[in-house]
Amino acid sequence: MDIAQVAPLYESVPPKSYGGTERVVSYLTEELVRQGHQVTLFASGDSITKARLVAPCHQALRLHPTCVDPLAYHIMMLEQVFATGADFDIVHFHIDYLHFPLASRQTIPTLTTLHGRLDIPDLVPLYQAYPDMPVISISESQREPLSWLNWQGTVYHGLPEALYNFHEETGAYLAFLGRISPEKRVDRAIHMAIKANMPLKIAAKVDQVDHAYFEAIIKPLLDHPLVDYIGEIGDHEKNDFLGQAYALLFPIDWPEPFGLVMIEALACGTPVIAHHQGSVPEIIEPGVTGWIVESIDDAVAAIRQVSTLSRRRCRQGFEARFLVSRMAKDYVHLYQTQLKKRNDRVAS
Amino acid sequence: MDIAQVAPLYESVPPKSYGGTERVVSYLTEELVRQGHQVTLFASGDSITKARLVAPCHQALRLHPTCVDPLAYHIMMLEQVFATGADFDIVHFHIDYLHFPLASRQTIPTLTTLHGRLDIPDLVPLYQAYPDMPVISISESQREPLSWLNWQGTVYHGLPEALYNFHEETGAYLAFLGRISPEKRVDRAIHMAIKANMPLKIAAKVDQVDHAYFEAIIKPLLDHPLVDYIGEIGDHEKNDFLGQAYALLFPIDWPEPFGLVMIEALACGTPVIAHHQGSVPEIIEPGVTGWIVESIDDAVAAIRQVSTLSRRRCRQGFEARFLVSRMAKDYVHLYQTQLKKRNDRVAS
Repeated sequence: MDIAQVAPLYESVPPKSYGGTERVVSYLTEELVRQGHQVTLFASGDSITKARLVAPCHQALRLHPTCVDPLAYHIMMLEQVFATGADFDIVHFHIDYLHFPLASRQTIPTLTTLHGRLDIPDLVPLYQAYPDMPVISISESQREPLSWLNWQGTVYHGLPEALYNFHEETGAYLAFLGRISPEKRVDRAIHMAIKANMPLKIAAKVDQVDHAYFEAIIKPLLDHPLVDYIGEIGDHEKNDFLGQAYALLFPIDWPEPFGLVMIEALACGTPVIAHHQGSVPEIIEPGVTGWIVESIDDAVAAIRQVSTLSRRRCRQGFEARFLVSRMAKDYVHLYQTQLKKRNDRVAS
Repeated sequence: MDIAQVAPLYESVPPKSYGGTERVVSYLTEELVRQGHQVTLFASGDSITKARLVAPCHQALRLHPTCVDPLAYHIMMLEQVFATGADFDIVHFHIDYLHFPLASRQTIPTLTTLHGRLDIPDLVPLYQAYPDMPVISISESQREPLSWLNWQGTVYHGLPEALYNFHEETGAYLAFLGRISPEKRVDRAIHMAIKANMPLKIAAKVDQVDHAYFEAIIKPLLDHPLVDYIGEIGDHEKNDFLGQAYALLFPIDWPEPFGLVMIEALACGTPVIAHHQGSVPEIIEPGVTGWIVESIDDAVAAIRQVSTLSRRRCRQGFEARFLVSRMAKDYVHLYQTQLKKRNDRVAS
């Protein structure tokens, strides 16, 4: 098929460091190319891809030194996409709702994966205006606040098979990986580790917006001798950081639509102890790939049971459900359905 | 004519306090209604108008207590505008470039007044994608960075005739009115007043983003016995604040596309001493309605000459060029031109 992928411009595809959406778009794009599709990627100019790259800006915008108006580049990207839209069998958007007024007025087949949380009241009237826009969720739980959208399917994220490798040996520390922010609850992870009397390594970045929270709430907790805060780590360090861990702690306090780090841990063979929130019950199989908990005490009990889990079964759980080849196959199936609908409309 | 006005949703129309664009849209809308046109105003639900109001959100978004995604409401407004666009003879946008990809694909006649500064590098590639989009400037100087746009005209802002009333008597203090921010240079105004040995009253708000600047740079200057900082004032207080002043100081350090406060002062009969920047030379007639200066020393010399100016001539300067009736007439002329072009295209 002739496929366009439309990524946000805040991070490059793939991102230099953090950036969930752009990373998933990269995995999907490269896998579609590998499978023999013609793929055009709309993304920032510092993206690296085997697809044809169309770049509305030279550099990703989040850390761009002079960019004051990121929206201008996104609007220009819409212009580029819709100027050439008829060349594609399908245009797959990853930029929330920005293109909806255009997409609803054009005959180009489109699909939109919604990557963000949808429990934001501001979104309701907007999405109500587009009950027919074909959208894709990244977990079933993500849909709940807007269950009445024109959902075409749920496609769980997937990772390249060889991106992380299986670590057979059980590690000696608990791991926390991600951002330090109120909804990620690294404070819970610290209390879990202290109660379980196990070392905790924290690899996490602090966004500007979370700086006051970090200073006031988290920094005082980092002094504990069991806690080792190692700052932000790069993609190449994550394999060992996750693979050498005893378990990943994922004590979130928000309906995270898809926790990518959970499947990264599983890819390494590392079990996950996660709070019962958002997509967690769809990703973790309790007693097989980890445990789903409701409290710190639950988590401490789960930590004590980790040795009953098989790390090989964790890796197998990843391979069975969260490979990029499966993600790409799911999407191609949805592309074909969408294209067929359009062709049926044109024919009738 | 059947006219749609499309305002930003950050402030109500008119705004409760500060907010240049929404205020001008309000003056224009009410005047068009007064002149007998059918006007539909797309604006926040707390707007007050004699036009038909279509409100994508209940409340203006800048100070909205729970709004986290103002863009969602603006995209919904685009949907509402273009869903009913064919009902209008002209759709007049005041929301920068957000509608360009839609407007360029629809047959609805549109015009866009660009209210902001255009010397932002991010804008260049976007506007290059729309060389045919009909746009209107609010001063000639505003056009300079993007002189190659499809400019249809310059329409200076205008105020209702009775909004401010003529104050015959020369006041005893210098006035500064607006925001406290680095580009507004209230520090210059303070130094001018001290050098001229005249009292200065500062009526200004401090945005969150300018708080550090205010604390570090401006606050230490406010202790001087000649300086009286009275904080933010409402619309109803501005008449006396400006009218009872000796002169308005407008020592800007940026290419302000149109300084509304200058014509507010003139409406009161108060002369303006302004730095040579942006639209200033198009608004101030040196030796008649004020002086244009290049330095603090220039300004001090100008302050000493204010008594040679006629306050009545200042008011007359306002009435001759900056009434809302003139602004509305200019716009209706441009609307008619645009409508005729569309009809010619349809006929041919």
